[in-house]
Amino acid sequence: MVRHRKEHGRPHVVVVGAGFGGLACANALADAPARLTVIDRRNYHLFQPLLYQVATAALAPTSIATPIRSIVGRQRNTTVLMDEVRGVDRAGRRVFLSEQAITYDFLVVATGARHAYFGRDDWEPFAPGIKKIEDAMAIRHRILLAFERAEMIDDPKEQRRLLTFVVVGGGPTGVELAGAISELAKTALAKDFHWIDPASARIVLVEAGPRVLPSFPEALSARAASALERLGVELKLGAAVTACDGTGVSVGDERIDAGNVLWAAGVRASPAARWLGAPADKVGRVIVDGSLALADDPHVFVIGDTASVPRGDGRPLPGVAPVAKQQGLHVARTIKAILGGATVPAPFRYRDFGSMATIGRRAAVADFGPVRMSGFVAWILWGVVHVYFLIGFRSRVAVAAEWLWAYLTYKRGARLILGLAGAERADSRPSAAAAN
Amino acid sequence: MVRHRKEHGRPHVVVVGAGFGGLACANALADAPARLTVIDRRNYHLFQPLLYQVATAALAPTSIATPIRSIVGRQRNTTVLMDEVRGVDRAGRRVFLSEQAITYDFLVVATGARHAYFGRDDWEPFAPGIKKIEDAMAIRHRILLAFERAEMIDDPKEQRRLLTFVVVGGGPTGVELAGAISELAKTALAKDFHWIDPASARIVLVEAGPRVLPSFPEALSARAASALERLGVELKLGAAVTACDGTGVSVGDERIDAGNVLWAAGVRASPAARWLGAPADKVGRVIVDGSLALADDPHVFVIGDTASVPRGDGRPLPGVAPVAKQQGLHVARTIKAILGGATVPAPFRYRDFGSMATIGRRAAVADFGPVRMSGFVAWILWGVVHVYFLIGFRSRVAVAAEWLWAYLTYKRGARLILGLAGAERADSRPSAAAAN
Repeated sequence: MVRHRKEHGRPHVVVVGAGFGGLACANALADAPARLTVIDRRNYHLFQPLLYQVATAALAPTSIATPIRSIVGRQRNTTVLMDEVRGVDRAGRRVFLSEQAITYDFLVVATGARHAYFGRDDWEPFAPGIKKIEDAMAIRHRILLAFERAEMIDDPKEQRRLLTFVVVGGGPTGVELAGAISELAKTALAKDFHWIDPASARIVLVEAGPRVLPSFPEALSARAASALERLGVELKLGAAVTACDGTGVSVGDERIDAGNVLWAAGVRASPAARWLGAPADKVGRVIVDGSLALADDPHVFVIGDTASVPRGDGRPLPGVAPVAKQQGLHVARTIKAILGGATVPAPFRYRDFGSMATIGRRAAVADFGPVRMSGFVAWILWGVVHVYFLIGFRSRVAVAAEWLWAYLTYKRGARLILGLAGAERADSRPSAAAAN
Repeated sequence: MVRHRKEHGRPHVVVVGAGFGGLACANALADAPARLTVIDRRNYHLFQPLLYQVATAALAPTSIATPIRSIVGRQRNTTVLMDEVRGVDRAGRRVFLSEQAITYDFLVVATGARHAYFGRDDWEPFAPGIKKIEDAMAIRHRILLAFERAEMIDDPKEQRRLLTFVVVGGGPTGVELAGAISELAKTALAKDFHWIDPASARIVLVEAGPRVLPSFPEALSARAASALERLGVELKLGAAVTACDGTGVSVGDERIDAGNVLWAAGVRASPAARWLGAPADKVGRVIVDGSLALADDPHVFVIGDTASVPRGDGRPLPGVAPVAKQQGLHVARTIKAILGGATVPAPFRYRDFGSMATIGRRAAVADFGPVRMSGFVAWILWGVVHVYFLIGFRSRVAVAAEWLWAYLTYKRGARLILGLAGAERADSRPSAAAAN
């Protein structure tokens, strides 16, 4: 069934993916002489930069996710569909969803990226990554369960293994995750157990390159490294993971027995290139031109982590929210120009306002080109910026309140182990017996 | 392996289940000359009276769940284990857990109840009940997904079915759930859809008896009924469910096609009677004596929804938090008396301070014997009482803030559809395609 609800007979813009890029585009098209359909397989927009805090029990999932309908659903020209893209027919200008096809005049693909294992997908069950809320909740489950299981057993070697956490990847996510696990163990959980000492947990951060935060200036990498070490995180730099299984990980020649190995090392774009039959780069990103459209099809735009944009210096754009947002806005302007009433913008150029990463309590680094910061001031700034960019008044207040509470009490508010699909697979214990 | 960590050589009290009863008992034993082990298959205590608000997207799961360790884990004589009871050896005074057995001097069983289907367990997949957080999240998923699916399709008959919600059971949970679904549809979601009108949703409350809230005085039942009707809830009283399947429900001779049928009609105690080899009543509750111990075993106590307590008038005690708490306290006093240093308390008698149920915004009923209330005042009181009884400063603030926000904005903050284990089963859509 092809459905094309001919409302007002206006041109139809279909935006697939309600991440930072898709929503920026959809918002900017609210006043366009077009009708707009936003499709996402989720009913919420996720504030991914704080997802690691869900994984480490600092934030509730609801605090960093906002219903897409409450963001763009009230725009008069906009329909929101919770559905999945199965394919695209560019010749017929149709998007195939799970049970229907919809036609488009312009298609904006903003379907993001997943974590990737450099060809070792067999490692995924042993070293989960964090891209979705379910990933984060499953990791929260695994981390908290490791302490619970260590408390239950007598074998000191197995206890040691359970209380060893390895984070693979020294980029911002890996650094933030390692710091957060260390804080969880050494402060929030420290006094809650009777037989084990959570503060004795070993947290190892593995990075194949020579330094953490490789995209930051060297001086800030060094400060991040000392902040991590102050938090008790063990750094293994210039060391690649060579094996990964159910009991731990091998780093170079060294074996580390670990109850939890977490993956923050690689990304792979969503399969948009396949849907579109378009050329892609080595991590699957669709190659677009300066207007962010396919070279051979000006009706199809690709943005955010799904797009590979030509750049003077040959380096790819970082997979961060500001890039996706600026691209979404750029595409919206281009579409408005084509529909008349606006000037066609110049080819896309990313305006880099700087980058930040947090390491833990009172420790962060910020790089704004000439201005560089670290320590307490950078940490406060990081918090303010992240609360500011959260969508929705409620999320801002909720996250700010949860952080304030955690700062004052050293506690974590979201320490639930829930029976999630992903978590059940990771945990082999039967769940039939005691009701409570 | 039998493990009996002989700490201080003190008598060992094992509490199974960290609900209202188990925690009240454990808290009261903090100063007893005994060591204490609290076992629960969850790592959190759940404030069950507000669980329906998680199911209707009003509260986040983290707001009504508190880590057990942060409640009793810091008591110096207390160990918390996250584990499941597989059986009890009363002769050897051992509790069998998933991978070990622990010995006890006193055993307190407080493992609660599950929902029950009066012998029609085959209805469960089509009419889920709410006892666990996962249940509530799965129901939230189903309710929100019904609106999403209705928005996607063109068939008005199927849209009508998807937007029909049937709640079975007119007790407090059923009344609260029906009222909350109605408010969700008619206010929070009302303006967020483009093709369907959520406010046109049909909500039906089915009760086999002649009135809703049968445990309340008739006058308050009548007020609750009018409040429900004002909210747009259709009442079917004196009507029993005769069939239940994937497309709806039969009530007497009437067929109601419904996208969601929710079960709030019956409970069944946890399988403690089987573990203990003890006599039980018809819903599986273990029959105990006036000291809440087994008649033939003064070392084993059973409390809360798992216990059937003799009562002068022959009526069972209601399955509510105050009963469980008072029983937990009573058992703690009895154990202390046996260990010396306290007087053996008189046989357990429930002190009924009254009961309350909320119907929706500004509507509730409260019965305190001579004093009866309904409407706005009862609603405010209901809110204050529930916030007061929430455990932990953080939960109190979080719930109060979420309610205030919802009251002022008419929005719901927890509208996430997550890929939970239970929810995936309920929803047959494949989840492989689009990343985002």
